Amino acid sequence: MAGNSFGEAFRITTWGESHGAAVGVVIDGVLPGIHLTEADIQTELDRRKPGQSAMSTARQESDAVKIMSGVFEGKTTGTPILLMIRNADHDSSAYDNIRDTPRPGHADYGYFCKYGIRDHRGGGRSSGRETAGRVAAGAVAKNILAAYGIDLVCHVVQIGPEKADVDLLGNLSVGEIKERIEKNPVRCADPIAAAAMEKAVLDARENKDSLGGIVEGRISGVPAGLGEPVFDKLDADLAKAVMSIGAVKGFEIGDGFTAANATAAQFNDKFMYDGKDIVTKTNHAGGILGGISTGMEIRFRAAVKPTPSIACPQETVDLKSGKNTTIEIKGRHDPVIAPRLVPVAEAMAAIVILDHLMRNRMLKK
Amino acid sequence: MAGNSFGEAFRITTWGESHGAAVGVVIDGVLPGIHLTEADIQTELDRRKPGQSAMSTARQESDAVKIMSGVFEGKTTGTPILLMIRNADHDSSAYDNIRDTPRPGHADYGYFCKYGIRDHRGGGRSSGRETAGRVAAGAVAKNILAAYGIDLVCHVVQIGPEKADVDLLGNLSVGEIKERIEKNPVRCADPIAAAAMEKAVLDARENKDSLGGIVEGRISGVPAGLGEPVFDKLDADLAKAVMSIGAVKGFEIGDGFTAANATAAQFNDKFMYDGKDIVTKTNHAGGILGGISTGMEIRFRAAVKPTPSIACPQETVDLKSGKNTTIEIKGRHDPVIAPRLVPVAEAMAAIVILDHLMRNRMLKK
Amino acid sequence: MAGNSFGEAFRITTWGESHGAAVGVVIDGVLPGIHLTEADIQTELDRRKPGQSAMSTARQESDAVKIMSGVFEGKTTGTPILLMIRNADHDSSAYDNIRDTPRPGHADYGYFCKYGIRDHRGGGRSSGRETAGRVAAGAVAKNILAAYGIDLVCHVVQIGPEKADVDLLGNLSVGEIKERIEKNPVRCADPIAAAAMEKAVLDARENKDSLGGIVEGRISGVPAGLGEPVFDKLDADLAKAVMSIGAVKGFEIGDGFTAANATAAQFNDKFMYDGKDIVTKTNHAGGILGGISTGMEIRFRAAVKPTPSIACPQETVDLKSGKNTTIEIKGRHDPVIAPRLVPVAEAMAAIVILDHLMRNRMLKK
Amino acid sequence: MAGNSFGEAFRITTWGESHGAAVGVVIDGVLPGIHLTEADIQTELDRRKPGQSAMSTARQESDAVKIMSGVFEGKTTGTPILLMIRNADHDSSAYDNIRDTPRPGHADYGYFCKYGIRDHRGGGRSSGRETAGRVAAGAVAKNILAAYGIDLVCHVVQIGPEKADVDLLGNLSVGEIKERIEKNPVRCADPIAAAAMEKAVLDARENKDSLGGIVEGRISGVPAGLGEPVFDKLDADLAKAVMSIGAVKGFEIGDGFTAANATAAQFNDKFMYDGKDIVTKTNHAGGILGGISTGMEIRFRAAVKPTPSIACPQETVDLKSGKNTTIEIKGRHDPVIAPRLVPVAEAMAAIVILDHLMRNRMLKK
Repeated sequence: MAGNSFGEAFRITTWGESHGAAVGVVIDGVLPGIHLTEADIQTELDRRKPGQSAMSTARQESDAVKIMSGVFEGKTTGTPILLMIRNADHDSSAYDNIRDTPRPGHADYGYFCKYGIRDHRGGGRSSGRETAGRVAAGAVAKNILAAYGIDLVCHVVQIGPEKADVDLLGNLSVGEIKERIEKNPVRCADPIAAAAMEKAVLDARENKDSLGGIVEGRISGVPAGLGEPVFDKLDADLAKAVMSIGAVKGFEIGDGFTAANATAAQFNDKFMYDGKDIVTKTNHAGGILGGISTGMEIRFRAAVKPTPSIACPQETVDLKSGKNTTIEIKGRHDPVIAPRLVPVAEAMAAIVILDHLMRNRMLKK
Repeated sequence: MAGNSFGEAFRITTWGESHGAAVGVVIDGVLPGIHLTEADIQTELDRRKPGQSAMSTARQESDAVKIMSGVFEGKTTGTPILLMIRNADHDSSAYDNIRDTPRPGHADYGYFCKYGIRDHRGGGRSSGRETAGRVAAGAVAKNILAAYGIDLVCHVVQIGPEKADVDLLGNLSVGEIKERIEKNPVRCADPIAAAAMEKAVLDARENKDSLGGIVEGRISGVPAGLGEPVFDKLDADLAKAVMSIGAVKGFEIGDGFTAANATAAQFNDKFMYDGKDIVTKTNHAGGILGGISTGMEIRFRAAVKPTPSIACPQETVDLKSGKNTTIEIKGRHDPVIAPRLVPVAEAMAAIVILDHLMRNRMLKK
Repeated sequence: MAGNSFGEAFRITTWGESHGAAVGVVIDGVLPGIHLTEADIQTELDRRKPGQSAMSTARQESDAVKIMSGVFEGKTTGTPILLMIRNADHDSSAYDNIRDTPRPGHADYGYFCKYGIRDHRGGGRSSGRETAGRVAAGAVAKNILAAYGIDLVCHVVQIGPEKADVDLLGNLSVGEIKERIEKNPVRCADPIAAAAMEKAVLDARENKDSLGGIVEGRISGVPAGLGEPVFDKLDADLAKAVMSIGAVKGFEIGDGFTAANATAAQFNDKFMYDGKDIVTKTNHAGGILGGISTGMEIRFRAAVKPTPSIACPQETVDLKSGKNTTIEIKGRHDPVIAPRLVPVAEAMAAIVILDHLMRNRMLKK
Repeated sequence: MAGNSFGEAFRITTWGESHGAAVGVVIDGVLPGIHLTEADIQTELDRRKPGQSAMSTARQESDAVKIMSGVFEGKTTGTPILLMIRNADHDSSAYDNIRDTPRPGHADYGYFCKYGIRDHRGGGRSSGRETAGRVAAGAVAKNILAAYGIDLVCHVVQIGPEKADVDLLGNLSVGEIKERIEKNPVRCADPIAAAAMEKAVLDARENKDSLGGIVEGRISGVPAGLGEPVFDKLDADLAKAVMSIGAVKGFEIGDGFTAANATAAQFNDKFMYDGKDIVTKTNHAGGILGGISTGMEIRFRAAVKPTPSIACPQETVDLKSGKNTTIEIKGRHDPVIAPRLVPVAEAMAAIVILDHLMRNRMLKK
């Protein structure tokens, strides 16, 4: 009810505040007998952590994960897995000035209205640090999906005005994109666009500003017939999962908003036998029709807003004095969120797919 | 688990197939002592039903709702409300040819892979007729919201290439939009654009084709502090609710995908006292920050695909013979979905808001 | 949240009031492709309905069930099944005097405090008539369980001071008990005790009083390994299911309260190979250890209170005037509940077992 | 779905294995602004921990709790609270012999059938140690209930053949019982019976055997109108909560099984005004009618089986060799469970009451 859990059959509950003792996740519903080590999870967490390039904040967090339960002799036991990532000792003084002064673009004011009290240090519960638990749980989900031939990737296709080449991307497989995005700090599979994106981000930071972007997700190997037909449509659950990541302002499946300006003759994907399987000739639907997978690659996109924490002074109010004021946000912040959102979006997508597979009893026990 | 329910505190479960005995909804969690009559619900159902103009199919459905439980002497009792809408006697023979031949753009193939069996008549469970239950439940939710000063509307802002005037819309209140959209069959608040949309739809029908569109939603009167901060963000739940409506391919909150090409200096909404309340100077966020309402008007948009049922022959496969074939879809179908989706999207939005108000104990009992 | 649903994977939601238009149930999560007819369900409903003997009220209810959705050409489709049982036209005037005067032993006062309003006619939502929906859903569950070799029965083992012969019962199989209990109106498998029970009930009715009793349940064919180990223990869920039936005041699994006065040497069931399977030499545990089935017969018992509606005058209060008063309950009521509870307890047990089988992915799809 | 969570509005998820790194609980749905310290929780955990008398195992566990999230400057923030209790370094070798040899009376065999793999050390997930998380969460719930005038206690009323004096108990308030039970190691409010119980336990241990018992629960201050009327009846949820504690084999509300041999004239509790409130003259119902609280003291009883781990050799099977064998359980074990179950049953009862109060919006925010 308080909304810190996601999934039904594979269910995660994240906990922890940015400057509290630790952050983490409990996963309930993991199949027994799956190989799982801290190293498997650490790999994904390392993709999320900051300080890796000029694209992200210079903060250093070691983000070392500990498995506290649910794994025995290197295998899952089917009981809840508690993953814990201790927070480093933070100097929280940089946040003193936001205690009663909500930052524009942040959740501060909403928390104040909702709870009356909050751990404001480092953004507390509303910090992007909460996503460490999601990424850790997503690593477990990906591990299982891989065993069933399901592969997925998220990648940056736009930052500010710079866009990746659509034709180039259209020809790349999930595996090729995975390889390409680790070669540049913006996680874009088009190296020419990536260079332009990098430059745009550095320019924005120079201006004490930040940029938004678009992240695309692709999932291959999902069998036809996955998803529930009414409210828990596969794309509806993907939409919720992705929109639940802070900073995401929009979600599309397949052609998305472009479909608004299409006719059915253009948009409908024709079915055909390709000699082996039933496929669609095109994939405007993005692999999902009526909420149920068609067996084609699933494709979605997420709109990511610019990082709200910027160095230039911003107008706001002082909740104690009841007066208008100006806030200057201290500390070092990412000048763009989209590249760091990539592993988080992958984690959420993996969790949705695995959860539906388990709900549908489409995994061998 | 099978996904036919939505909401936690105000929980609806729809049931019924297009050509079965009836369709309807059970609502669990209705506050006791609320005035409720069949007429209250019928008004909304009448907005959903077809045959009202050339914009929709000429099918005639009376769609008369019956309250079967949960209301006593004109008031809710707090027990489950069962709403039933009997289906007219249909001639299902028009659907014989789709029994084993999935229609492009429809859920037919997914149902086949998922269930192995389906009531194919009129689309069965995947028919838009399922939304009658949603609209009926939404009428109950709207009734309650109105008592708390919360008002909402959905309206068409684009059909095919024709778009409503953004500047005009920006100045209209929820109440003004409600009034305007009932004056034209496309439910657009801009009468000039509405005329162009009508023409575009008629042209598409002439070409045995159909058009997509965009529907905007606006909710006024939502207090600040509504929504859960992590997975059940208010916008994440709105996204799921709206994406769970068949034909919706995209969802945006506030500026949505436009935010991808904005900087924080442009996009962040500054807080200020307006003498009475804390407000934001602009509303790029669409009334929600970090998943929690800010007290500003909530604004979202949904991309609606063109009606997949079109009169021209389409390529598909015969699931029995395993051969490629062509299908011609009989019967009369809406040449555009967006206007008919308006009451459905309103219903889903109303349910999300009421459910969160109840989860937050923000309603007096 | 409002508690009208039960089960996770096989989920039922009952609705309806005793003297409203109808009562019924929505079942979500039924496997597709299962043969199901109204006659299958009617058989179970007929076992529940009153007027069959002097053991129950002389009221006549036809209780004819209608399948309104989810079944196509005689088979389930995997979509929600709505079952509806219309209420006969009742004369509700017999209940006028309980509108503001709570009946001792009934839920009336609690409803008043909780809701402030209620449909008092015939007990409204708190009437035993609500269980018609449970029995209808249980018929569907039993149908599926039978296909997996799981059989179950409930039967009366005590009414007032009259008890069935424990040694006799110990030697009977589920099938034998099923046969025997349909031969007498108290549904007791021991014919000698049954005769004594009948007499006791008639005597109680003569005295304008009523009797309590004990119902035993037995489930055979449940594979070892069913149940969740912590909160959703199989016996915990059976306890909730059975205690959720009005009039049940106690629940035991296996030896139950007798275990309090046993030592481990007496109580522990020893494991052994019987040449084919691992079994326990005794079954004090009632087929469940640590919340998980052992493969042995599951045995539970429920304590049923005497029917609270009796003909002699009873002290109560008038909620309007705020004064002590006396109420005389009109109409004809069952002089004992236990025999009529038998099909309801069977239904709830069947739903628990099927739900856990589905949650555990222990059914082929 | 995997059953490690309990509660809807106040929701706990326990995690951890007996000899793993730690055990604990995540609590979601805690109201913000409540004072909470580790010391508040430690007090309850200390009541649960072993080694306090000859009534329990001589194992020493420090059981020090750490609050890892959800509390800021000594107050709850409304975000999830993670409580962690590190396990001491255990010598797990005493459990080597149970790796493939299920202990009679334990969950070992069920886990093997369900999961195929388990952490057998110290009982792993099925160990009573899992209840540390419940007790920690219960401490938080009790804290909140106290602020609303709700008090509760559990106490031992029977061990083996020794029973507390019913008349004596009937006259004691919740507060008096709380005081009395801390004065003897069996947690019985009747000191004479307590002495006899102690002796019985020591005798059993001498015989390498163990004893069962009965625990009673009492809850005062619950307002009338709490509980949901159909499946989530207050007593049904209490039954599930208490039956979910390992070793509990039966549950009664009010007179429980005694009601089976009563008539309605004896059993029905008459309503009356006592000048101030509506009360019942007697309380055979145990404070709950039709699943909803009446405002009278809630009373329930739980049957607790004898500790299955006893020192004398027991027959079982070797799952690897497929042969019958004998097991001798090493280590030191409680010769009776009932007294140690007291704080666990209190915790579960507190969680049920608080959860229903929150579901009913009966707490000020």
